[in-house]
Amino acid sequence: MKAYIHVYTGNGKGKTTAAFGLALRAAGAGMKVFIGQFVKGKTYNENIAIARYLKNITVQQFGLGCFIVNNPTDDDIRTAGKGLDKMSKIIEAGEHDLVILDEVNIALYYKLIDVNQLIEIMRSKPDHVELVLTGRYAPQEIIDISDLVTEMKEVKHYYQQGIEARKGIEY
Amino acid sequence: MKAYIHVYTGNGKGKTTAAFGLALRAAGAGMKVFIGQFVKGKTYNENIAIARYLKNITVQQFGLGCFIVNNPTDDDIRTAGKGLDKMSKIIEAGEHDLVILDEVNIALYYKLIDVNQLIEIMRSKPDHVELVLTGRYAPQEIIDISDLVTEMKEVKHYYQQGIEARKGIEY
Repeated sequence: MKAYIHVYTGNGKGKTTAAFGLALRAAGAGMKVFIGQFVKGKTYNENIAIARYLKNITVQQFGLGCFIVNNPTDDDIRTAGKGLDKMSKIIEAGEHDLVILDEVNIALYYKLIDVNQLIEIMRSKPDHVELVLTGRYAPQEIIDISDLVTEMKEVKHYYQQGIEARKGIEY
Repeated sequence: MKAYIHVYTGNGKGKTTAAFGLALRAAGAGMKVFIGQFVKGKTYNENIAIARYLKNITVQQFGLGCFIVNNPTDDDIRTAGKGLDKMSKIIEAGEHDLVILDEVNIALYYKLIDVNQLIEIMRSKPDHVELVLTGRYAPQEIIDISDLVTEMKEVKHYYQQGIEARKGIEY
């Protein structure tokens, strides 16, 4: 079965949750899933659920736990770069049917990783490995070589009303 | 903690998976989740994963297992109507922190259920119950009374290339 490349981008809610929902679906079908999270470095409740209940899914984080506000530090760049190298190996090994690069578009946007290295990884992926890339600001060159691209568009958001992120819902 | 109403709509991929990803996150936070699926009536792989591993999440289906192509039958309408009654009770009881009405917008679009009954349910929900509605064609009156609305917009889709739905990825 040929596998494809998905991108979930845009400014709306639901990009990471869509990827995790897909991981849940794949796990239900007996597939092996690897999720690499760029930029993120804290334990979210979905990670807790996976660690506790879903042995088919592995999550690893390649971020320092705080979002980049202005300029990324050398540490941000080093951590993300190591992450991409690791994801490259995971994808190439072909042992996981579904590989998710969560927030990789954000890592690109902040120039934490090299777009050409990512394109090379996408281009040379084993045929049977499904790839999912998430995060705002997916660049055109990534969209061009992907098979399925969804833009999560914010129509209405309660953050506009000044509500704080809540446990179990936003993280 | 006040809870809100989310809508995931649009023609792109990721609406149901975003809702299920949210369910996974909520389960990780120890919340109780109920998912009612309208129109759908077959066992998807995400349902298998939940039944097998995630005891905090309950899924029930209110569909006949085949998508409506032309006119809905009386059976489609009866099944969806019973589903909405059941969801109304679940929401009102307030025992679940997160309640998902998957494909409810499709049920509205095909006039399987009454939009005013749904609006009444949404308006009178207990304060602590988070609601999620998914499906294409969310009508404006539903958007108006929701707090967070994301449109999943199809930018590129491999179905355009004539590829069949695949186990573990599309269902």
